[in-house]
Amino acid sequence: MSKVRIEAFSDAVIAVAITLLALDLHVPTAGGSGLAHKLGTQWPNYAAYVVSFVTIGIIWINHHAMLRRLVSVDHTVLILNLILLLTIGVIPFSTALMARYLTASQGENLAAVVYGGSLLLMAMSFLALQRHLLLRKTHLLEEHLTTTMRRAVLRRNAAGVLPYVLATAGGIVTPYLTLAICAAIAVFYALPATTSDA
Amino acid sequence: MSKVRIEAFSDAVIAVAITLLALDLHVPTAGGSGLAHKLGTQWPNYAAYVVSFVTIGIIWINHHAMLRRLVSVDHTVLILNLILLLTIGVIPFSTALMARYLTASQGENLAAVVYGGSLLLMAMSFLALQRHLLLRKTHLLEEHLTTTMRRAVLRRNAAGVLPYVLATAGGIVTPYLTLAICAAIAVFYALPATTSDA
Amino acid sequence: MSKVRIEAFSDAVIAVAITLLALDLHVPTAGGSGLAHKLGTQWPNYAAYVVSFVTIGIIWINHHAMLRRLVSVDHTVLILNLILLLTIGVIPFSTALMARYLTASQGENLAAVVYGGSLLLMAMSFLALQRHLLLRKTHLLEEHLTTTMRRAVLRRNAAGVLPYVLATAGGIVTPYLTLAICAAIAVFYALPATTSDA
Amino acid sequence: MSKVRIEAFSDAVIAVAITLLALDLHVPTAGGSGLAHKLGTQWPNYAAYVVSFVTIGIIWINHHAMLRRLVSVDHTVLILNLILLLTIGVIPFSTALMARYLTASQGENLAAVVYGGSLLLMAMSFLALQRHLLLRKTHLLEEHLTTTMRRAVLRRNAAGVLPYVLATAGGIVTPYLTLAICAAIAVFYALPATTSDA
Repeated sequence: MSKVRIEAFSDAVIAVAITLLALDLHVPTAGGSGLAHKLGTQWPNYAAYVVSFVTIGIIWINHHAMLRRLVSVDHTVLILNLILLLTIGVIPFSTALMARYLTASQGENLAAVVYGGSLLLMAMSFLALQRHLLLRKTHLLEEHLTTTMRRAVLRRNAAGVLPYVLATAGGIVTPYLTLAICAAIAVFYALPATTSDA
Repeated sequence: MSKVRIEAFSDAVIAVAITLLALDLHVPTAGGSGLAHKLGTQWPNYAAYVVSFVTIGIIWINHHAMLRRLVSVDHTVLILNLILLLTIGVIPFSTALMARYLTASQGENLAAVVYGGSLLLMAMSFLALQRHLLLRKTHLLEEHLTTTMRRAVLRRNAAGVLPYVLATAGGIVTPYLTLAICAAIAVFYALPATTSDA
Repeated sequence: MSKVRIEAFSDAVIAVAITLLALDLHVPTAGGSGLAHKLGTQWPNYAAYVVSFVTIGIIWINHHAMLRRLVSVDHTVLILNLILLLTIGVIPFSTALMARYLTASQGENLAAVVYGGSLLLMAMSFLALQRHLLLRKTHLLEEHLTTTMRRAVLRRNAAGVLPYVLATAGGIVTPYLTLAICAAIAVFYALPATTSDA
Repeated sequence: MSKVRIEAFSDAVIAVAITLLALDLHVPTAGGSGLAHKLGTQWPNYAAYVVSFVTIGIIWINHHAMLRRLVSVDHTVLILNLILLLTIGVIPFSTALMARYLTASQGENLAAVVYGGSLLLMAMSFLALQRHLLLRKTHLLEEHLTTTMRRAVLRRNAAGVLPYVLATAGGIVTPYLTLAICAAIAVFYALPATTSDA
């Protein structure tokens, strides 16, 4: 199978998921306290929107870089990619959960663990697909990468999973730690030259 | 008409439908019982999300394999494909219905029959399109398939409809049977080498 | 400008609109009267879903046929196409309005007029774009069509607007007339050989 | 990296955002005052839908023109484009906010400033990406543009930001001023020959 349609389908799923994030920005009902106050109390939603948007965006960039090396895809690649998309599809939900509970006095730790855990799951699904391609199905690759190069890519990918473990565990302490770590990861990968060969 | 745009349109519709599934993962309102309990009672939604996501994903993979053989499309192909997409568009609704009624004491059998029935309808629409291509419009195919090969593909496709008949009928007994059969079908097709030439 | 991206963008907008139609299929809340009864009272939603889905699908097929003739697009084509997409984006709303009021004792005529009117608007936007291409910007066309052929296409397109005028006006009598006419139009265009050169 | 997938992803995100605008067209509940009256009070939603739809549509057209000049993209282009998409994703929210508060007696000025501000942010993100391409990464461009030509494009783009500053500031006076200016900008760019080389 050619890789054109797996790219098109993945692009579309990721694009829908990233745009559905904005459905969690709520328009306050009129009346009662001032609009400024109502919009102000929604700051966790804005913060979570930006962090999740950039996170999904970076996964999309890395997904690109991964598929660029491929010549064709097999059934396992399609299924592993489907599982990756399944975890991306969950992120609007976990983002909305995080945003609603961030400033709550109850359930905030669990919400943060679910949020961090959903990003961790996405990173692990990405790693599983990358490992499949670089270790087992090297004949699907466009260019011959040396074992050293392939290991370097995988090491970087595996290293990318660790911060999400911290972010998830950090939710046990305070949800702000989870959000801060996820924001830091997003900024780190958005900076020049860090994902160029993810 | 070239097949590029029918692929692009189908990819987009399937991608939107698969991502809309996550809209049925609800963020619990704060207060009252603990968040863990609230999230826990939503397990039918998580189960239904995974089963429907993988099911739609596999239909997408098979759709791929079907269109890959085509050189061009005619009006009947477009209309049959539209009907297939119409049935896929219904799945987020039937999935949400199934999830809400799975553990209910009333209406759970009907909800399961509707869910199984919607997947059955999708499988039958797929088969109708496949039959049209392999039996009537063989001149649209890229490569010449022998009658034996075409019949083998159709037999496999027809066989794929049967489990959904069971899943639908199983809903009369208990909705858990419907969900279990649909999950088993999804796992079966996700395993290597089973859909490679669907 | 090449026509590839206008196709991709139009495909995506139409695909999202056609899939959003299913958001108007509501999952009944548990409790009270039986689920069968609750689902049964939603029949206007199912009918409206099918009619609007096929209608948008056919517009997509015709849009295809229209763009297939083009070599490149100019600014006016982009704007007229944008207006067409704007009218398609409204259809999930007018469909939901029609479905909710079809069996109501008040407002049902207006709802039907709005529904028929939204499809009429779509058909007129399509005609405006087609006229622009076939009468004024013939140099954008891939193949040279004779004046006779171009007039024949336009006549068929203009004739396609008339039934929607009837459907809209029919809403004044009863909303069932609007729905019946729109369903008949959808079936007519779905039959073989009628839209092959729209 | 090739520019094909950045086009496909951007097209999809913009298409989803532009279609989600229609989710703010609400179907009135039956009963009470007449449907005509209920639909009539929603006129700010219709006005905001049209203005935002055309505005996003024009950004899409300009995005096209911008990417058409590119041969390939680098990491900074991907990130700046992601930020542009993030601002576009916010527009359905700010449009719904504007529509709900336009005729309110409280919060209407702030809602207008947020709406104008979201469009301003989009225009500024667009300008940032354009500046990056035309001033710093000229080697990514398909054709060699002279310094004079590049400055002319940038001047036009920078000039395009100013009206949104006015629209945002105008919200302090009255939200109608914001909506009127945004509508005027949309009409201006929709007229022939003004965005042909944006």
